[in-house]
Amino acid sequence: MEAMSLVLFGATGDLAKRKIYPALYNLFIDGKLPRSFSVFGLGRRELTDETFRSHVEQSLRAFSRREPQDEAVTQQFLNAFRYNVLHIGRLEDYGKLLSRIERREEALGAAPNRMFYLSVSPEFFEPIAANLMESGLGSAKGWKRLVIEKPFGHDLQSARVLNEKLGKAFAEHEIYRIDHYLGKPMVQRLETLQQSNPVLHALWTNRHIANVQITANETVGVEERAAYYDQAGAVRDMFQNHMLQLLTMLAIHLPSNSSSEEVRLKKKKVMEALVPLQQEDLASLVVRGQYASGEIQGKPVIGYAAEPGIPEGSMNDTFIAAKLQIDDYFWRGVPFYIRTGKRMKEKSTRLVIEFKEPLANQAGHKDERKRPNLLVIEISPNEGITLQLNMKDTGRTGELQPIRIDFHANQQDVPEAYENLIRDAMLGDPTFFAHWDEVELAWKWTQPILDAFQANQVPLHAYEAGSYGPAASDELLAKDGFRWHFDTKQEQEQEQDDTETKAGTHYAYNANH
Amino acid sequence: MEAMSLVLFGATGDLAKRKIYPALYNLFIDGKLPRSFSVFGLGRRELTDETFRSHVEQSLRAFSRREPQDEAVTQQFLNAFRYNVLHIGRLEDYGKLLSRIERREEALGAAPNRMFYLSVSPEFFEPIAANLMESGLGSAKGWKRLVIEKPFGHDLQSARVLNEKLGKAFAEHEIYRIDHYLGKPMVQRLETLQQSNPVLHALWTNRHIANVQITANETVGVEERAAYYDQAGAVRDMFQNHMLQLLTMLAIHLPSNSSSEEVRLKKKKVMEALVPLQQEDLASLVVRGQYASGEIQGKPVIGYAAEPGIPEGSMNDTFIAAKLQIDDYFWRGVPFYIRTGKRMKEKSTRLVIEFKEPLANQAGHKDERKRPNLLVIEISPNEGITLQLNMKDTGRTGELQPIRIDFHANQQDVPEAYENLIRDAMLGDPTFFAHWDEVELAWKWTQPILDAFQANQVPLHAYEAGSYGPAASDELLAKDGFRWHFDTKQEQEQEQDDTETKAGTHYAYNANH
Repeated sequence: MEAMSLVLFGATGDLAKRKIYPALYNLFIDGKLPRSFSVFGLGRRELTDETFRSHVEQSLRAFSRREPQDEAVTQQFLNAFRYNVLHIGRLEDYGKLLSRIERREEALGAAPNRMFYLSVSPEFFEPIAANLMESGLGSAKGWKRLVIEKPFGHDLQSARVLNEKLGKAFAEHEIYRIDHYLGKPMVQRLETLQQSNPVLHALWTNRHIANVQITANETVGVEERAAYYDQAGAVRDMFQNHMLQLLTMLAIHLPSNSSSEEVRLKKKKVMEALVPLQQEDLASLVVRGQYASGEIQGKPVIGYAAEPGIPEGSMNDTFIAAKLQIDDYFWRGVPFYIRTGKRMKEKSTRLVIEFKEPLANQAGHKDERKRPNLLVIEISPNEGITLQLNMKDTGRTGELQPIRIDFHANQQDVPEAYENLIRDAMLGDPTFFAHWDEVELAWKWTQPILDAFQANQVPLHAYEAGSYGPAASDELLAKDGFRWHFDTKQEQEQEQDDTETKAGTHYAYNANH
Repeated sequence: MEAMSLVLFGATGDLAKRKIYPALYNLFIDGKLPRSFSVFGLGRRELTDETFRSHVEQSLRAFSRREPQDEAVTQQFLNAFRYNVLHIGRLEDYGKLLSRIERREEALGAAPNRMFYLSVSPEFFEPIAANLMESGLGSAKGWKRLVIEKPFGHDLQSARVLNEKLGKAFAEHEIYRIDHYLGKPMVQRLETLQQSNPVLHALWTNRHIANVQITANETVGVEERAAYYDQAGAVRDMFQNHMLQLLTMLAIHLPSNSSSEEVRLKKKKVMEALVPLQQEDLASLVVRGQYASGEIQGKPVIGYAAEPGIPEGSMNDTFIAAKLQIDDYFWRGVPFYIRTGKRMKEKSTRLVIEFKEPLANQAGHKDERKRPNLLVIEISPNEGITLQLNMKDTGRTGELQPIRIDFHANQQDVPEAYENLIRDAMLGDPTFFAHWDEVELAWKWTQPILDAFQANQVPLHAYEAGSYGPAASDELLAKDGFRWHFDTKQEQEQEQDDTETKAGTHYAYNANH
């Protein structure tokens, strides 16, 4: 790997502490950092390098996926870290930083490759980008890259403005927009899962698929983020970015060993093929929800409206479900159902592919107990693949019962999303980042929802905390003859009931013969 | 269920003790015996009803799948059992038996339905059948059925003779030929597995299947059966009956809720479509093996030739592997590889469906680590379904690794083959019995192998006890570019090796910067 410096804005912030430092540390342990590598942490607070390093070390102890290694290894890792005071608006701070970086590059004999990681609020993206250029930091002979976190704009218009401003300092190919769902290992495998498995490849079309269900449920509420979240809602916080990205990753059909360019092209095509929402269909295709009080894992929790920092009468969405259609050769006629919410019964991100039942209308196929074949790809918190089939029950009553054939990954070995993404950015591989084309198309598709929510044209359904969202979400599928599958706990309970009713034994023939 | 009497020849024999009584008992517990039900045990030994019942009770304690129930339940079960002395050749014994059965039927007010179960050596089939008719036992107003065990003949000719003789006393629809592999629950589910799973239905053809592998391996040697086995060999003991039945059960394509008549018809069609072996191809399509000494589960075992009762220089086969082709619309071009042997490394009966890799020749698809998609149906000793797919490894080195998604049945709930088969015979359902047409076609197809073995035209390969058979068995597949899959232990070890080589960690970047 090429020598490089990582210039980190927001080095004392929460994301850096919880995700970025632990990710770098695990990459280091795996031998996946460049041999010449420096981190320049930036913040407004006055810190010495030593204090900064001890701050980083604490973050490893608290958040590293792997146990911290022995002292020497950790020290070796921390040696790469330096701290600089920087006020975002103060150009001279950038100049000082540049000198320090150049001295370091010179000392290491390393090329001036610089990765600017903006782990700060998006209102600072533009001034930082401008000052990076103006100070000369961004005009080295090596490469420069900009890594930014969501949110990327608040709607279509603001996203376009932001992109235009960033574009003055960085070319599109230099910008790495993190959508951490794209960093999750199981999402990154969706591509090869189809490509390298003829069995799935053969089934992965509208000839065999009845519908696709994409769920990202959280059990947490709004937490400390009321100010941000009440302005964003589930539609901006999850739907426009993570959920649409999951949809495209599932929906693309790629030849094997596709280049990052091909992946982007195909993702763009899928986004373009999304059938636009019409004003008159919005209320029937989109469900808006807000959690009321309820119970999460046996403990009572308050409703959204009662959360600290939420303005009275907030109509903000903490749940959204939607039906989407991709009008292309592979997916025409296959509805994609998406839902995401806070304070749901269980934390789970998963994709469910429900297969068609071409035989269902044959005589003798009216078995009520029969359930459709499902391919379930669990993304988090645990990774797994399940194929649900039907089998005659062991008692040979002739009844069909669903069986689940499962794979579960060894979770210890699974790298965090940030490890994957930071490494890709270091390698200059944009495959699993959100290209502007996708971001813009996603905003474009979502904008009618934003407008309709704003204008209150879609009803806001309250749902009990600890439930699976409002009844309207179930109705969204029921209208098409489907239902949400694999809401694990529910279904497990149901199966248990089935088993119990079968458990009784009874003796036969007359006692008196 | 209709009232009936079960007339059991060989009531003090091994099969009755180990399989038939436990099966009846478990059916009783499940309420699956007729309310009016009697068992007349027959043998040469003089036993009272009481002694016979205590003999039956002992067999339940030793061999019942379920723990014996409380005393009252077991007594109720045993009340149905009576014993009669009967010498097979002595017609008057049949007359006495008839009187007793008639008295019993009268006492119960039960119809004279009689099931004659011949758990005796096949040389007695014919005299028993003749005496049943002559004594009037087989000419009741109710129904009569004949249940017989393998072997059904020693070759095509002797099977035809036997069938003709039985045909004088029983019509084909009255004969239930037990092939206990057809009673195994997973085999009985093959039919619905395809029918009720669109995902499997779509894949279950020569468009997607590269080959089918049918394995029935045992770890035991010839045991106490030297006299029988040295005359039979693996080809008669396993191949002509069990293995060809497994093949047909896998290969038939049935509409759902097929009648037993349809199942038979389809099985017959598959048998008829088996491409006949040509004299000149025999040595390349059939592998004959005999176990030499070796180790089974860490313990040394002797070779076949050294087993007590085996004549010196025996050329008997304890292993057979063969390549078969079914020339019909669904299976044309898909080789079926069958193997069965004694003293193999592990006890396992399984079906492996290997899927084609249409993408394998694309650029970038030359990954050596890649393994084909497999559907593995484990029949015994444990039941299970596994789908082997390929996935990018979690470390994201980009390497593909096979993953196995598994279902394993709860073995406690799985009925024994004999439970299923005895109940079907009681109900008059012939679906899972071998029809004469199939038996005859199976002998017909096998006869060239019998002749070639006899004439020593196929080499006899020694194989080490505890191995997977002779190397020639691997070459049989290797010639076509395939290999035997899922020889579990081997592959698990291989995977472990792979993991170990990945386990080492290494640190990067220079210590001195």
